[in-house]
Amino acid sequence: MAKVLAINAGSSTLKWQLFEMPAETVLAKGMIDRLGMADSVFTAKYGDGKKFKMTRDIKSHDLAATLLLEELKDLGIIARFEDISGIGHRVVAGGETFQDSVVITAQTLRKIESLAEYAPLHNPTQAYYIRVFMKLLPRVLQVAVFDTSLFAKMPPQNYLYSIPYDYYEKYGARKYGAHGTSHRYVSQQAAKLLGKPLADLKMITLHLGSGASITAFDHGQAVDTSMGFTPLAGITMSTRCGDIDVSLLPYLMEKLHINKMSDMIDILNHKSGLLGLSQLSPDQRDLEQAEASNPLAKQALAIFINRVVKYIGAYAATMNGLDALVFTAGSGENGIELRANIIKQLAYFGVQVDPQKNAVRGKARVISTADSKVAAVLMPTNEELMIVRDVMRLGHNDPAL
Amino acid sequence: MAKVLAINAGSSTLKWQLFEMPAETVLAKGMIDRLGMADSVFTAKYGDGKKFKMTRDIKSHDLAATLLLEELKDLGIIARFEDISGIGHRVVAGGETFQDSVVITAQTLRKIESLAEYAPLHNPTQAYYIRVFMKLLPRVLQVAVFDTSLFAKMPPQNYLYSIPYDYYEKYGARKYGAHGTSHRYVSQQAAKLLGKPLADLKMITLHLGSGASITAFDHGQAVDTSMGFTPLAGITMSTRCGDIDVSLLPYLMEKLHINKMSDMIDILNHKSGLLGLSQLSPDQRDLEQAEASNPLAKQALAIFINRVVKYIGAYAATMNGLDALVFTAGSGENGIELRANIIKQLAYFGVQVDPQKNAVRGKARVISTADSKVAAVLMPTNEELMIVRDVMRLGHNDPAL
Repeated sequence: MAKVLAINAGSSTLKWQLFEMPAETVLAKGMIDRLGMADSVFTAKYGDGKKFKMTRDIKSHDLAATLLLEELKDLGIIARFEDISGIGHRVVAGGETFQDSVVITAQTLRKIESLAEYAPLHNPTQAYYIRVFMKLLPRVLQVAVFDTSLFAKMPPQNYLYSIPYDYYEKYGARKYGAHGTSHRYVSQQAAKLLGKPLADLKMITLHLGSGASITAFDHGQAVDTSMGFTPLAGITMSTRCGDIDVSLLPYLMEKLHINKMSDMIDILNHKSGLLGLSQLSPDQRDLEQAEASNPLAKQALAIFINRVVKYIGAYAATMNGLDALVFTAGSGENGIELRANIIKQLAYFGVQVDPQKNAVRGKARVISTADSKVAAVLMPTNEELMIVRDVMRLGHNDPAL
Repeated sequence: MAKVLAINAGSSTLKWQLFEMPAETVLAKGMIDRLGMADSVFTAKYGDGKKFKMTRDIKSHDLAATLLLEELKDLGIIARFEDISGIGHRVVAGGETFQDSVVITAQTLRKIESLAEYAPLHNPTQAYYIRVFMKLLPRVLQVAVFDTSLFAKMPPQNYLYSIPYDYYEKYGARKYGAHGTSHRYVSQQAAKLLGKPLADLKMITLHLGSGASITAFDHGQAVDTSMGFTPLAGITMSTRCGDIDVSLLPYLMEKLHINKMSDMIDILNHKSGLLGLSQLSPDQRDLEQAEASNPLAKQALAIFINRVVKYIGAYAATMNGLDALVFTAGSGENGIELRANIIKQLAYFGVQVDPQKNAVRGKARVISTADSKVAAVLMPTNEELMIVRDVMRLGHNDPAL
């Protein structure tokens, strides 16, 4: 048995999860919040429901990493740092270079750093943590798991934009997608649940969290996804606009007297989507509660569903069929009404929701009727588990794993 | 019988067509090219294949309009100006105000002028021509026919973008669509050809010209369309990019050292689409000729078809079904191989091309096999005829019509 750590670093948070592998048991998990600020908060859950919480200033990433390992020891979860046999790091942008997860070497690390432009808020921090953990645990296998690698091998007609081709060649202007680790995990799990090889299925996975994306899997290969060059594109999200006419940018900037394009992009990232449409809340649940008396809340939900249905239709058409539809992430796992409303609009595909099976949150199960031609599946996502599975897969020659 | 004139004014062209109504016979048609420049060219076709061409400076819209009426008289097509009983004017932008064609009054004319912001290159010129023709023929019924009115009553979930709702309320930021007159015409003609009321059909019309758009008709009502706030959005076009991630705008401007957003939008309008992708030509025919030896040409065509298929899938899904698919405009009418390639990718919908029926250009006919569940129809568009039909419809109380 091996202890493998999954690290998911953001600019001001560090989420982590320690697994016993290959049993896939969670030994401990937690996060550091308010990282880099005063009064950072370190929380952990471990053992049989034990909880630990500590508030102190954690002003550097170096300190955060060291503290995490030390607390794991202090709490008795590991005996020595070297009990950890592998670490998997989430990395947001893998560009076209990383078409799969990869064992980290000095060279791959430099490449991750060089992709900073595609994820300026994430890649530099994530690369920094990789360096820190390599210093702390120099003999331990470290693996980078990219949000984008699932989409690196999509067919060109789906990743290319209809802009001058040299913008792709020279500047990498293409669709990279996001949420790849989640889409990959739930696609594999859903195929298992359905008792069919993923390679035999036409599947659409719906990652409906506060960021939301939709991916088409044609016989096991991700062939298209709704997020674009950045995670701003695609379906309506909590605060992101998704697809819009690019001409709106100059028009709205003039109307709103905005001079800096980054300020406008900021509005499209943080004040649009469900929040902008409803003028109430970015949260699906708040809108469902309000919709009976609030027409804008109701309309925002209708628009969200409308975009989801259109992407499903588009992907089913390009795949020339559909076998399974998989719901995951926040709203996908917990939005009972939402799932029912989406499936209701897909009657054309021969799928019908089973209200009893659907009346559940966060459990892996088929939620369509037995006679549905397309299976609808609820599958909780688990990016951390996917990350440590990749560590095991890539470390199969490593005696420590 | 009444003579009704259709006027389609651009910034440097004036296209016109004179019909005998209600017989719908074309008495004469032609255009003025290089308007406002030296050596403008006036051409007309009339009678049984007669042609007329004249080169002279036509530097003002006033002169162009007068000249048109005078030449119609000189060529013996009309005896006096007053033989013209009605004029229909194409107007590009009708905003939300004009949900149908409209008889022009001083008030509607002012309103058309006030919508200039939505079509700065078109509405002012078109309004100017309306004024000129009202002066020249003060007693003649004049009707404005809008490219957008078909889409004014789409359901809000399809015309709203997922941006702050007050941008719609205050600034009219919504999807307006375009090519409405063409989509309306071919939808009606295709229903007639199929022998079914349009109100009984789920239909998708594909206007595939150098500008290209796709419209969904649910039981006679246009419910969605691929062009957006402007005609830049939607599917890949000859030189327009269609849908892209809006984040590409700041990224590419930095890479290309472009400071003015309008310069970037210009590239997306004029140097993108098939031209940008193929780096060869904006013309579908050139790409088809080159594709055997030119991978970029082949890829550009594949991307074009890919976007068309996705929109068809999306609209069939939101309408929960599909009865008919209608091809029109340049490539839609003449692209035999293109139509076959699109239909080939739609097997899922139960539609199959009949190669013999499809081997034709610009003829109204069903091109799918008899056992297809969805009928594919080739229907030449005729925006001018739709315009004069609207003049007749709105002028039904006018004794001159």
